[in-house]
Amino acid sequence: MTDLIDSAAAYEADAGNREPQPVEDEVFAIADRARAASRKLARATRAWKDRALLAIGAELLAQQDRVLAANAVDIAAARESGTSAALLDRMSLNAERIAKLAAALAGLAALPDPVGTVVRGQTLPNGLRLRQVSVPMGVVAAIYEARPNVTIDIAGLALKSGNAVILRGGSAVAQTNLALLNVIRDALEQVGLPADAVQSVDAYGREGGAVLMRARGRVDVLIPRGGRELIQTVVNNSSVPVIETGEGNVHIFIDESAPVGSAVEILLNSKTQRPSVCNTVETLLVHSASPALVPVLTALAEAGVRLHVDARVMSALPAGIEASLADDTDWATEYMDLDLAVGMVDSLDEAIRHIRRWTTGHTEAILSNDLGHTERFVAEVDSAAVIVNASTRFTDGGEFGLGAEVGISTQKLHARGPMGLAELTTTKWIVHGEGQVRG
Amino acid sequence: MTDLIDSAAAYEADAGNREPQPVEDEVFAIADRARAASRKLARATRAWKDRALLAIGAELLAQQDRVLAANAVDIAAARESGTSAALLDRMSLNAERIAKLAAALAGLAALPDPVGTVVRGQTLPNGLRLRQVSVPMGVVAAIYEARPNVTIDIAGLALKSGNAVILRGGSAVAQTNLALLNVIRDALEQVGLPADAVQSVDAYGREGGAVLMRARGRVDVLIPRGGRELIQTVVNNSSVPVIETGEGNVHIFIDESAPVGSAVEILLNSKTQRPSVCNTVETLLVHSASPALVPVLTALAEAGVRLHVDARVMSALPAGIEASLADDTDWATEYMDLDLAVGMVDSLDEAIRHIRRWTTGHTEAILSNDLGHTERFVAEVDSAAVIVNASTRFTDGGEFGLGAEVGISTQKLHARGPMGLAELTTTKWIVHGEGQVRG
Repeated sequence: MTDLIDSAAAYEADAGNREPQPVEDEVFAIADRARAASRKLARATRAWKDRALLAIGAELLAQQDRVLAANAVDIAAARESGTSAALLDRMSLNAERIAKLAAALAGLAALPDPVGTVVRGQTLPNGLRLRQVSVPMGVVAAIYEARPNVTIDIAGLALKSGNAVILRGGSAVAQTNLALLNVIRDALEQVGLPADAVQSVDAYGREGGAVLMRARGRVDVLIPRGGRELIQTVVNNSSVPVIETGEGNVHIFIDESAPVGSAVEILLNSKTQRPSVCNTVETLLVHSASPALVPVLTALAEAGVRLHVDARVMSALPAGIEASLADDTDWATEYMDLDLAVGMVDSLDEAIRHIRRWTTGHTEAILSNDLGHTERFVAEVDSAAVIVNASTRFTDGGEFGLGAEVGISTQKLHARGPMGLAELTTTKWIVHGEGQVRG
Repeated sequence: MTDLIDSAAAYEADAGNREPQPVEDEVFAIADRARAASRKLARATRAWKDRALLAIGAELLAQQDRVLAANAVDIAAARESGTSAALLDRMSLNAERIAKLAAALAGLAALPDPVGTVVRGQTLPNGLRLRQVSVPMGVVAAIYEARPNVTIDIAGLALKSGNAVILRGGSAVAQTNLALLNVIRDALEQVGLPADAVQSVDAYGREGGAVLMRARGRVDVLIPRGGRELIQTVVNNSSVPVIETGEGNVHIFIDESAPVGSAVEILLNSKTQRPSVCNTVETLLVHSASPALVPVLTALAEAGVRLHVDARVMSALPAGIEASLADDTDWATEYMDLDLAVGMVDSLDEAIRHIRRWTTGHTEAILSNDLGHTERFVAEVDSAAVIVNASTRFTDGGEFGLGAEVGISTQKLHARGPMGLAELTTTKWIVHGEGQVRG
């Protein structure tokens, strides 16, 4: 993952030892242009914003050759510098992927407008008419890894929610991102929206991202998208409010009373359906009296899952199932791969204690037929999503019916769990009177 | 104001030049005890939490002599060190003020529980039952000035919303705060709730506050309460999410069509009813064709308001009305006193441009009978509250019907405008299934 982002240590060195730089002036000027554009965007109708999204999709297909040529330059340079095949794949665009991006923009256009919802409203005893209405944040910034699809994705989400956006993508795909930015800006101009609604600070390299982090007042919210290192760097260095997303050290607890067949199915789904994403399970805790341990681990091993187990699980393993001995590193690790840590516990309390120690607060699940236990698990586990008797893979904006997904927030402020378009808005209190004064 | 808080520069020096300290260990241990207490509090019923609030009120009256004796020690020391009479007044408790604090706690007990509200919920096509439910934040920390009433106020708000709280008050009233903390903890023990639900780091002085700011993960949200300097220090130095409250450089624009009598009443109310609070007006902009300028300024001058006016207003002043010439400092200043900056503009657009340049995003109002103008003002002014034809003094949790008020948020994330108890909660997604897996 570290190949995909610019070094966190370098960001921190910048933060600790900075003087006002010309780059700061230029990035602040970009932010000020974004602010001006955001004012037009905030008043744009849904129909107008949707036209822009569809125009970006169309322009993406029209300029496909140019985009793919730019991507080929980035890929060639990355290959030369020894980038792994897996990372090269995430950096690559092709005709099929571009078609998918255009289709996703059309899907976004089909969603309702998150702006203008009356969240609360009433007439006060003195006759004041009060409404709390959803409005765009204003200027959103995103710092993300070398994944060109995120450029289109974030720009689309920001536009749909009426926000201007400033992008800082991984330098390894700078040429691709520049081509995509031109596509977006051309499309915005076609429909008569300000091109400065989508801008990039990629030209300023690492320092561009560092300035965004200290642009409090100019940037309303900063969203880091990517791996742990990127997110922690932004969280630690930003004075702009951050929405932290995506770290998921997800647990499943199989209680004594859980039906074995269902436990097998849920574990297979939670671990193997898509192991590289944040809602995949990373630690399994099994009650010592559960009959599910051997069937579940057998099924997982057959599906190619590498097991990292504590001593009690090790001694319960049937012949032919291999496992390594787990230590604290395993309990702490978000593998995002076909690996699973497995521990044995003697009670619900022991399971909850383990989860409290190691969770990232993303998603935890209990498999149980004991109502008292499921109620306690739901009440006492402090995570964005707590699931009873279902796969952890359901923690997802699409699955939850939120339409588009901005990310999965693991913080408690503003947004928690899957974030949809509504979470890219704030509110404004609008008060209408006829001369009222306070008594 | 700077006498009330510990120096911002000193906080920043600490942040820039720190090594792990024993104080850090101790404050982190306090935070961990707060976390344990928060788990009990999160499951406490409304009736139980309300018993605690009433017990604190009763204990406050029972231990009044001890509290007042501690306060006398603080006040004597502050007087000796030359603290101004106004600040001494804000630091002082007496029997009447203690009775008011107890009454406020009873008022809080009468409010509905913000915890347990189902915010959204549906059954998904696959049969999963989904609920998003309000839950406490967990551990809240507050950093505030030398005002003993805030100690009781914040503790009450935190308890009612099911949160544990860590307090850091101004050192000048450390003895008073310690006595109040003992009152609160005694009351918690009486009703069987953990005393560690309310703790203080005052014993660690400035460093205690500095550690709270870097206790990300241990502290869920940090709320600075006080003047601009305190708030900016916390915002700039905290890696814990902050809710920024209270700065109000509030504007009123009198449009050409505003009725004169109503404009006079609204300006008098907005400026003179309580000039020391954040929702008082600080800048008045008057349309050059409005007949209201002279009557409004005459009424304000008669009410003792000192006017700071631009050159065009100066030349329009009638004989006998005094004013000083305003400069950019006046447009930027939140006087919080009987001072008002006054400028003349030739259009709604010019008024909006002025507001955009100088606003802190708290509250702005337009007085107008022109529907097109009021609609544009409401849409284009980006503040937490936008008011049409009423006093700016209405931006207030109590006036808005939110019950208790935590503060007025001037940021866009999580809470914007008057914050009630609901804004001290987050949400949890709870998912119930019968074995569903993702396809």
